[in-house]
Amino acid sequence: MEKFELDILGCGSATPSLRHLPSSQIVNFRDNLFMIDCAEGAQLQMRRMGLKFSRLNHIFISHLHGDHCLGLPGLLSTLALHQRTGEVVVHMFADGIRLFKPLVDFLARERTYDLRWEEVSPSGGIVFENKSLTVEAFRLYHRVPTVGYLFREKPKSRHLNGDMIRFHNIGIRDLAAIKEGADYVTPDGRVIANTLLTTPADPSMSYAYCSDTTFSAKVAEAVAGVDTLYHEATYASDQASKARERGHSTAAEAAEIAKAAGVKRLILGHFSKRYYNENQHLAEARAIFPNTVLANEGLTFDLNSPCSTTINE
Amino acid sequence: MEKFELDILGCGSATPSLRHLPSSQIVNFRDNLFMIDCAEGAQLQMRRMGLKFSRLNHIFISHLHGDHCLGLPGLLSTLALHQRTGEVVVHMFADGIRLFKPLVDFLARERTYDLRWEEVSPSGGIVFENKSLTVEAFRLYHRVPTVGYLFREKPKSRHLNGDMIRFHNIGIRDLAAIKEGADYVTPDGRVIANTLLTTPADPSMSYAYCSDTTFSAKVAEAVAGVDTLYHEATYASDQASKARERGHSTAAEAAEIAKAAGVKRLILGHFSKRYYNENQHLAEARAIFPNTVLANEGLTFDLNSPCSTTINE
Repeated sequence: MEKFELDILGCGSATPSLRHLPSSQIVNFRDNLFMIDCAEGAQLQMRRMGLKFSRLNHIFISHLHGDHCLGLPGLLSTLALHQRTGEVVVHMFADGIRLFKPLVDFLARERTYDLRWEEVSPSGGIVFENKSLTVEAFRLYHRVPTVGYLFREKPKSRHLNGDMIRFHNIGIRDLAAIKEGADYVTPDGRVIANTLLTTPADPSMSYAYCSDTTFSAKVAEAVAGVDTLYHEATYASDQASKARERGHSTAAEAAEIAKAAGVKRLILGHFSKRYYNENQHLAEARAIFPNTVLANEGLTFDLNSPCSTTINE
Repeated sequence: MEKFELDILGCGSATPSLRHLPSSQIVNFRDNLFMIDCAEGAQLQMRRMGLKFSRLNHIFISHLHGDHCLGLPGLLSTLALHQRTGEVVVHMFADGIRLFKPLVDFLARERTYDLRWEEVSPSGGIVFENKSLTVEAFRLYHRVPTVGYLFREKPKSRHLNGDMIRFHNIGIRDLAAIKEGADYVTPDGRVIANTLLTTPADPSMSYAYCSDTTFSAKVAEAVAGVDTLYHEATYASDQASKARERGHSTAAEAAEIAKAAGVKRLILGHFSKRYYNENQHLAEARAIFPNTVLANEGLTFDLNSPCSTTINE
């Protein structure tokens, strides 16, 4: 399976603290890095985790609260100092582009890369697509316009059975069609069934990021069937009314979304500083959705294996 | 002596790294905190060093490179989330106010404190004054307009000799004049010399911050006679031509400034990431100016005692 990982740069809420940094994470798709949210400190966390600035091409911002976007001008300046080449695309709401672009243009005037600002609609839609992956923004329900992001691998090719390909002496030009499921017709007219020439494609995996949002059944609909769901759990159940009031979720609510959406794994994050640890969050979520884990700075999750533990813990 | 300390939040150049954070420091004057420069990460470093957000009222920015100012929107947002009251004044160039004010107004709309933006002139001048302290901006010589900041305690009152004050039964209303050096005239007309009633005032201390700047004799003039000088030393002598080209200084050049200015102590900072440690900087500077020390994140220097080591090392 080709690499599809999630690196947690920060999973705290509101402000940097000694326990957590605010929201930022990297989806590492075959060594192409996609950043979701970019709080203050994100660039330093990339260094800590050994993630290469040269592999970062897309940054997706969920909403315009400081704890989700204030690392952006520093990161974009650093890319200029590192003489990054190629293109970097920042996907954010129009207000964000209006506020950040002049600052970045002033501070990183002499940049060596192409910086493109792509407007994201608060109502969502496809924001990125290539031959292997789509990234879709979808609406969340917070105090200000907010979107989540859903990464979905496209269907993959079947694996060729090398022994059988050689046995039938099949030419290279025919292989692409066979990988897509075609049967093979030999020069003397015999049909070799595709299932004899290939083994099934790897499953196409998916990952959804939901932060920040209050509990909403619409979120469960938007992320229905994804393999791994990162859902904010700012509070445990002791602060359920505060969660509602501030447009956030409890861990139990995140678990209800995971259950309703039929996902395979739930990662909790965006933790309030009022807790000394997130044991209560984990217990309350697991009572509803057993395959729940806690995000933490520095952790890497394998998005190909929704039932595995982290790669580096 | 009343508290006059320097807390180093960050003393690296260019970008946050695993060894140093970019420029930010706190002058703690009698538990009033004055920040100089505010790089990304400054707010978290304040927490690490136990410096209270509630005591921070003035922030002075030296110039508009990202590694000296990009912590500002995050810090000002955090003050709003902490429901800071009172006034916070940001002193910076007009371009900085134009770029940062809209961002902060958008992200920290609902702030509980008064935020004032005070324009600093690139040619310098007094930027703060109260009954005990002045802060003066002065010109530095970098690739873009840049100023240093000079903190100067005003002359202090003489110390009353309690025994003598009681012996002559001097009334409270007369004490202020005596502390300023007046003699005392007894009800029966005798003159008691001030030197019998008081001991000398503590010396008034001073501190100057010079980052970023190329080597210039004008800097030595501006900081002549200060007690403690923080001077950038981005490079050691191996990179002298690079220092000149980039508008920076070597450690030896910083020491030449300290020597020419007749300061008591030199603190080196703004270190390039190309070095694994700053031993070379220190040796080269000490050969010219012996009382040289290295800044480092988390260190606190006592500005009342220019010959002491750090408070917390």
